Amino acid sequence: MDYYFRKTTDYSFEEAIEKVTELLKEEGFGILFRINMDETLKAKIGADFPRYTTLGACNPKFAFKALTSENLIGLMLPCNVVISETPEGKVEVAAIDAVQSMLAVENPAVKETAQQIAEKLKTVISKLQSCSYNHSSSNKKHHEQYHNNYH
Amino acid sequence: MDYYFRKTTDYSFEEAIEKVTELLKEEGFGILFRINMDETLKAKIGADFPRYTTLGACNPKFAFKALTSENLIGLMLPCNVVISETPEGKVEVAAIDAVQSMLAVENPAVKETAQQIAEKLKTVISKLQSCSYNHSSSNKKHHEQYHNNYH
Repeated sequence: MDYYFRKTTDYSFEEAIEKVTELLKEEGFGILFRINMDETLKAKIGADFPRYTTLGACNPKFAFKALTSENLIGLMLPCNVVISETPEGKVEVAAIDAVQSMLAVENPAVKETAQQIAEKLKTVISKLQSCSYNHSSSNKKHHEQYHNNYH
Repeated sequence: MDYYFRKTTDYSFEEAIEKVTELLKEEGFGILFRINMDETLKAKIGADFPRYTTLGACNPKFAFKALTSENLIGLMLPCNVVISETPEGKVEVAAIDAVQSMLAVENPAVKETAQQIAEKLKTVISKLQSCSYNHSSSNKKHHEQYHNNYH
């Protein structure tokens, strides 16, 4: 089971950050932090890593709902969105599937809120423009279509 | 199964933040963000919530190891540490158990790194000074001692 929603896009790196920030805002999420992980790794241990930015996205209404049902759920908040450079030089945007990241939390109220948060993050990723040259993604789509039609 | 390591302490709120930051540093973790969740909730939706600070703790060596085995694991990094006020006016410090937060990731290399990260975060919490009036915690300690000695 995947623990993310993701899409490879035609955006430039900064455009992808701007676009996903805007779409997150439409779903009620603000950005609480931005970490340029590649720069952190370079600065701290001298490691080379492709561009990789993490945004901490928080929908305060849902965060409040989750925190009042389960005080320590803040250990899994905010919800991360990763913008990264692919080996093909494209830009991928991925959001955490809150249902999967909160699997270990045995609290039905949290599971319900996680489901609602996940739906919103899925919507955000679905609204990003796909990469027009992403053949592997097209093949996957074709495969899924085949799978859905014939199995 | 718990998804955290936690301890109720006698520290003041800011002392707890300083102390845990120092212990995290000893285990190779830097702090990549600090969110005062109670202030965020107040500012965004006017909600009242007890003091609640989230620190994003990152051990760059382990982060690099995890990211090279599983590119999207950044959706679950950095590892959160929560400092919060209890209803009794004490200060609780909790760290995520990375093994539990990464349950949905089906990658043996990640599971191994998560185990190593979790051990370090467990050590950090174990080194904090317990609250002297926390009877349930004392009982638990006694129980664990008994368990370690006789089983």
